[in-house]
Amino acid sequence: MAATEENSKICEAYPMKGGDGPTGYANNSVYQKGGADASKQFVNKAIAELELETLLSSKTFRIADLGCSVGPNTFFSMENVIEALQLKCKSLGLNSQIPEFQVFFNDHASNDFNLLFNSLPHNRQYYAAGVPGSFHGRLFPSSSIHLFHSSFSIPWISRVPKEVVDKNSPAWNKGRIFYSDATDEVLRAYEAQNVEDMECFLNARAQEIVNEGLMVLIIPGRQDDTPHSQSLPNMLFQILGSCLMEMARKGIVDEEKVDSFNIPNYFMSSKELEAAMERNGRFSVERWENLHHFAAHDIVYNIPQLLASQVRATMEGLIKQHFGDEILDELFDLYGKRLAEQQSVVVAGKAMVYLVVLKRKAN
Amino acid sequence: MAATEENSKICEAYPMKGGDGPTGYANNSVYQKGGADASKQFVNKAIAELELETLLSSKTFRIADLGCSVGPNTFFSMENVIEALQLKCKSLGLNSQIPEFQVFFNDHASNDFNLLFNSLPHNRQYYAAGVPGSFHGRLFPSSSIHLFHSSFSIPWISRVPKEVVDKNSPAWNKGRIFYSDATDEVLRAYEAQNVEDMECFLNARAQEIVNEGLMVLIIPGRQDDTPHSQSLPNMLFQILGSCLMEMARKGIVDEEKVDSFNIPNYFMSSKELEAAMERNGRFSVERWENLHHFAAHDIVYNIPQLLASQVRATMEGLIKQHFGDEILDELFDLYGKRLAEQQSVVVAGKAMVYLVVLKRKAN
Repeated sequence: MAATEENSKICEAYPMKGGDGPTGYANNSVYQKGGADASKQFVNKAIAELELETLLSSKTFRIADLGCSVGPNTFFSMENVIEALQLKCKSLGLNSQIPEFQVFFNDHASNDFNLLFNSLPHNRQYYAAGVPGSFHGRLFPSSSIHLFHSSFSIPWISRVPKEVVDKNSPAWNKGRIFYSDATDEVLRAYEAQNVEDMECFLNARAQEIVNEGLMVLIIPGRQDDTPHSQSLPNMLFQILGSCLMEMARKGIVDEEKVDSFNIPNYFMSSKELEAAMERNGRFSVERWENLHHFAAHDIVYNIPQLLASQVRATMEGLIKQHFGDEILDELFDLYGKRLAEQQSVVVAGKAMVYLVVLKRKAN
Repeated sequence: MAATEENSKICEAYPMKGGDGPTGYANNSVYQKGGADASKQFVNKAIAELELETLLSSKTFRIADLGCSVGPNTFFSMENVIEALQLKCKSLGLNSQIPEFQVFFNDHASNDFNLLFNSLPHNRQYYAAGVPGSFHGRLFPSSSIHLFHSSFSIPWISRVPKEVVDKNSPAWNKGRIFYSDATDEVLRAYEAQNVEDMECFLNARAQEIVNEGLMVLIIPGRQDDTPHSQSLPNMLFQILGSCLMEMARKGIVDEEKVDSFNIPNYFMSSKELEAAMERNGRFSVERWENLHHFAAHDIVYNIPQLLASQVRATMEGLIKQHFGDEILDELFDLYGKRLAEQQSVVVAGKAMVYLVVLKRKAN
């Protein structure tokens, strides 16, 4: 039946670093937390203003956070969404009929769910569940989720495009680890993968969400007029790639290993995001804000070592899988140094986070 | 709100041993598997015969396995239940309206959910979720589960009764680790804890289950006319206790440590189980079978080392928590020897597993 067939799409898993140690994601996600804080007002305002009476008339209100990692950010986001919904109920005079909330924390099966479950807030106002699996496939029964939330996860594509690691392809990405400083062929391969993944993502959600259900997406992307190579997250990966190549020249890592390593992220422009939603056609855009800047941003980008440890927490699992864990400390030490040297360039990079609220059109 | 208040009851967690190593629960649960196999026919027959048209008219059919541990037994059970329900749909002529199934795997947050999620069957016919928490409290929104299942988990009470580890109480259980070879006061304390826990368990389920929802319980218990000390699981714990005392006499473990160690299990008679359901009053008994014997039983009980490793997988976490892991190998070596010496006694012990199907009365 559907559950497995639709999730049989081949995808790979790239978990954030688990554990609660000093280099784990739980302690190195202030950037993502900054995004969540900045989006808090946006979410609250949207929920306050939108017409939600039908949606909130359900006895159980089910929320899913897609690509939740291990917390604490996902806990803050879920708490905020629920508080905004409770407030909305009160403002609608539904005091005695506030629904019970059930939150589904979703990430790949390789995510550290044990840590997530053991750090669930004790005073939470919801029933908690974990759902393992790729959000590029089906995760939930049809028409069962009232609100989807995803913060900083959408740029993760389901896999590195095959051509990019194929020596015989014109899209072979030799000597680089990302598309933004690569050939046009590499860029096209990443774009195509992103188009396919967004199609899978939106199709799956359109089936799982109830009529008039909401989808709140916080998506780091690229400004439409900014070249790929000048977009901030891309620059961070370019510098990481150059560090790996520097280590290859010193014989510390195998150059072929670097050639075959690529980061499965894609940062969309607003046009690409719009096009994806139009192709899907099942959602209307209720709110859209462009966030160029938030406070945590300054903190992170002005302290190169902090920035290096943030990138490490996000990318360590991926790098370890490919290179082994011996190179991690040296790589990220070097990375911190190179970020410091190029600080003025990094700070000039263009950042962009899209805050979007979509509503499922009635069937 | 309800989610946390109702789950605030103090309970402790005693996870089965995680990991997929040679001593882990995943590889040492043939006894429980035997029970599941034996109950398979019972479940299939009950589902085939019961009136389930209303229940199966739901678009999404939600199943929860309470105290699921890490698999594979829980996967077999869930697969079997779903196949029986699908067959039932077909026999009712509902071919085109077979519901989508969602399975919630529940156990304490300290259960190894990472292992569980990574070993989910690839060809599963359901959407999977994990739910961390004690089944003695609320786990799910009201009226949201269609079928509860629990196999071999109900004997776990929420904690060792306080009096049993209180030196100043007449119920202090010095020199023993269980109630079945202890004083009447110890037995009374365990009985009272079980009554309280069954009340919490049934109250929570009565709220979470839909009208006419089913509860399939596979409960190892005690025959009404068998003294506690002659009941098989009890005998196994008594022998384990005597091994710990033997090690205490040799100075390998601290005797006070043994005095303060007790196993939080209680094996009900059919009368106690009936009384618990009557006190709750929200469920009707649709099917009840007493299983005295099943094939895996013979295998396990006739091979003392196999029996020792089964008990080890179930109890290791608990023992490690209390005594540290240094004593484990020596303890279970000794246990295997003593079981072999007393094999004729063990084999004469009386076993009993209750197979029960309950139905939620309409509100």
